[in-house]
Amino acid sequence: MPPFNKHPATAPDIGISPDQYQDDIFTGFEGPEKLLEIWFSPSPYTRGTELPENPTVRLNQDLRSIPLEVITEMLDIVHCKILNTTSNEYFDSYVLSESSLFVYPHKMVLKTCGTTTLLLAVPKILRIASEYCGYSVPYRAFYSRKSFMFPKAQVYPHTDWTHEVSFLNQYFENGSHYMIGGSNSDQWFLYLTTPNMASGSLMNLNPNGVQQSGLNGVPHHKDTTIEILMTKLDPKTMEKFYIQPDQPEGAIGGRNLEKVSGIDKIYPEAIGDSYMFNPCGFSMNGLQGEHYFTYHVTPEEQCSYASFETNIPMETLTENGTIPLQQALQKLVSQVTDVFNPGKFSVTVFESQPIEEHLKSYHLNIPKVPKYAFSDRILYQFPDYSLRYAHFVRE
Amino acid sequence: MPPFNKHPATAPDIGISPDQYQDDIFTGFEGPEKLLEIWFSPSPYTRGTELPENPTVRLNQDLRSIPLEVITEMLDIVHCKILNTTSNEYFDSYVLSESSLFVYPHKMVLKTCGTTTLLLAVPKILRIASEYCGYSVPYRAFYSRKSFMFPKAQVYPHTDWTHEVSFLNQYFENGSHYMIGGSNSDQWFLYLTTPNMASGSLMNLNPNGVQQSGLNGVPHHKDTTIEILMTKLDPKTMEKFYIQPDQPEGAIGGRNLEKVSGIDKIYPEAIGDSYMFNPCGFSMNGLQGEHYFTYHVTPEEQCSYASFETNIPMETLTENGTIPLQQALQKLVSQVTDVFNPGKFSVTVFESQPIEEHLKSYHLNIPKVPKYAFSDRILYQFPDYSLRYAHFVRE
Repeated sequence: MPPFNKHPATAPDIGISPDQYQDDIFTGFEGPEKLLEIWFSPSPYTRGTELPENPTVRLNQDLRSIPLEVITEMLDIVHCKILNTTSNEYFDSYVLSESSLFVYPHKMVLKTCGTTTLLLAVPKILRIASEYCGYSVPYRAFYSRKSFMFPKAQVYPHTDWTHEVSFLNQYFENGSHYMIGGSNSDQWFLYLTTPNMASGSLMNLNPNGVQQSGLNGVPHHKDTTIEILMTKLDPKTMEKFYIQPDQPEGAIGGRNLEKVSGIDKIYPEAIGDSYMFNPCGFSMNGLQGEHYFTYHVTPEEQCSYASFETNIPMETLTENGTIPLQQALQKLVSQVTDVFNPGKFSVTVFESQPIEEHLKSYHLNIPKVPKYAFSDRILYQFPDYSLRYAHFVRE
Repeated sequence: MPPFNKHPATAPDIGISPDQYQDDIFTGFEGPEKLLEIWFSPSPYTRGTELPENPTVRLNQDLRSIPLEVITEMLDIVHCKILNTTSNEYFDSYVLSESSLFVYPHKMVLKTCGTTTLLLAVPKILRIASEYCGYSVPYRAFYSRKSFMFPKAQVYPHTDWTHEVSFLNQYFENGSHYMIGGSNSDQWFLYLTTPNMASGSLMNLNPNGVQQSGLNGVPHHKDTTIEILMTKLDPKTMEKFYIQPDQPEGAIGGRNLEKVSGIDKIYPEAIGDSYMFNPCGFSMNGLQGEHYFTYHVTPEEQCSYASFETNIPMETLTENGTIPLQQALQKLVSQVTDVFNPGKFSVTVFESQPIEEHLKSYHLNIPKVPKYAFSDRILYQFPDYSLRYAHFVRE
């Protein structure tokens, strides 16, 4: 992430906010990101009258066909710029001046930090999805973030969780929102809608050959988001996230830092696209088949923060089923936290579930991590998603 | 509960509140209760230099020794009156004009509805526990409630969840608070503190013969609170909660209604103390050994509400282990909801856990209930308590 002195502070006078239980004196850069996913169809291959034999075929209603200049206009509203772009057969990945954008045929994942105005782009995204891809209504939406470090520096509609919810409700139907975790830990906020079955995108659905286990007959296409949000990073460990006089910034510096930090060991087969900011900060997008992962690091001690996010399913962590899921998750969390050595962090595992599994008795299987104690562990079970959350503090 | 026209509305102008996602037009009586538990010691028999052989012995630091007139003064602050009192060897039970009070040697459980000012009694409770029983500091505290139906009718500090939290933090240390459930269901708010190990009450602890599995060596004394909070009660079913011209009100009317409603079948061996209000409404406290249960019913259609609460442990529902815990809970929930036929209800199971079980992978075992679908199911795992929550809507 870019160093914080690039971002002038604004301090609007806001009402009572859950965020304000945190320190609200503006003293640094807001690393914690806003994360928006807008889906226009339940999966990349449920569009059109026939399922394509090759799921990588680009159908006519494909968000990836939106011109780059239109994506850029959308990002101007958010107040961030494209630094680099990488694509594979499944999706387009953008490293931004403030975090990341991933564009799939059927969904857009936009993550931005600092005082960016992510939600102001919602009407533009809906308009261009309609104009360029014929998506008349969105299928569903998710918006989440942790509590801000410096809430008074945010600008509307990010001035308060209730403002964000009201804003989202202008554009999405059947939204509900949750405040997860206790006041003594970092809280995590989630807004999600139910699937919009009136979405024209589903009218032509031909589910032959696709597992019939979704909501109202929509095929269940497994969706996972794992996030590890870290604060109070060890200053000694963070030294390598500052640029040295003889080191390059940008993509080359980023690639070097992947190796120096050990990030390259976690998904060694991924295509990486990383960026080293001057004088400090780091962002990386990784592409692994149809899945992504992304890191963003703000190393300054007064506002240190690092985030890891991926949609690589939990099951791929089990090394072909040879290690239990819980142990695989523990290994991933340990690998990521070893890179940053945080004082505190939260883990969220947000997973879609076939509707017939809704009645099962769920496990809260976020494991303990060596050197850390957890305060709260939480399981939310929604009709077609589950959320596992745990907050850890260094022992 | 008393009919709502006894309670004049006040409508203070308040800030942004989670409660305000609910209907905030004042049109009826606020059935949903505030529930406060203040513990002065971890169990009734951890006081004194030796554990008594008979746990029913009243030790000198016994909240039950507080004079009745002092309890009455405390309740005056809350704005409610004692209607009846029942005692057994373990605790004293009070049916109040607005809900209930239970006094154990080591803890007080106060539950009040309407526009009562429950939290204003906190300083008085702490003072009398010190003055009459020598408890210099509380051991821990719990405060919870569901979202109000008519939040604008509440008076300070119940005008807003954030006001309640700030108020509690004046009197208790290490409090944290949680907002549980989504905006599309009835939310449930919880404040709890960690145990206060500096409590003088623990200095003389002699744990010989008591299972050593609590926090910091404090014996684990199993604590359970199960609540079923019901709204949109079936008007036809509610007719029996209105007094008929030839029927008595008060305790005799209450006893009749226990039979007519079928409430007496659920815990047939309990000592019941119930009250029929004129022209409508019902309250009941039940005493079963060291445990209580309590019902409060507001039958008026525009604000219908019924609550069931008990501290009878889940394990006693299994009929000596012959039926699984989940099935036993399902049976209890069905029995209670059959009495009131609610359109919506929430179930909360709040249970203490020995600290060594904290690292286990917990189950979210609130079962489906016939005729109802659940929206959210939630599991919160705190260091020494777990909370299972589910919200149900009639199918």
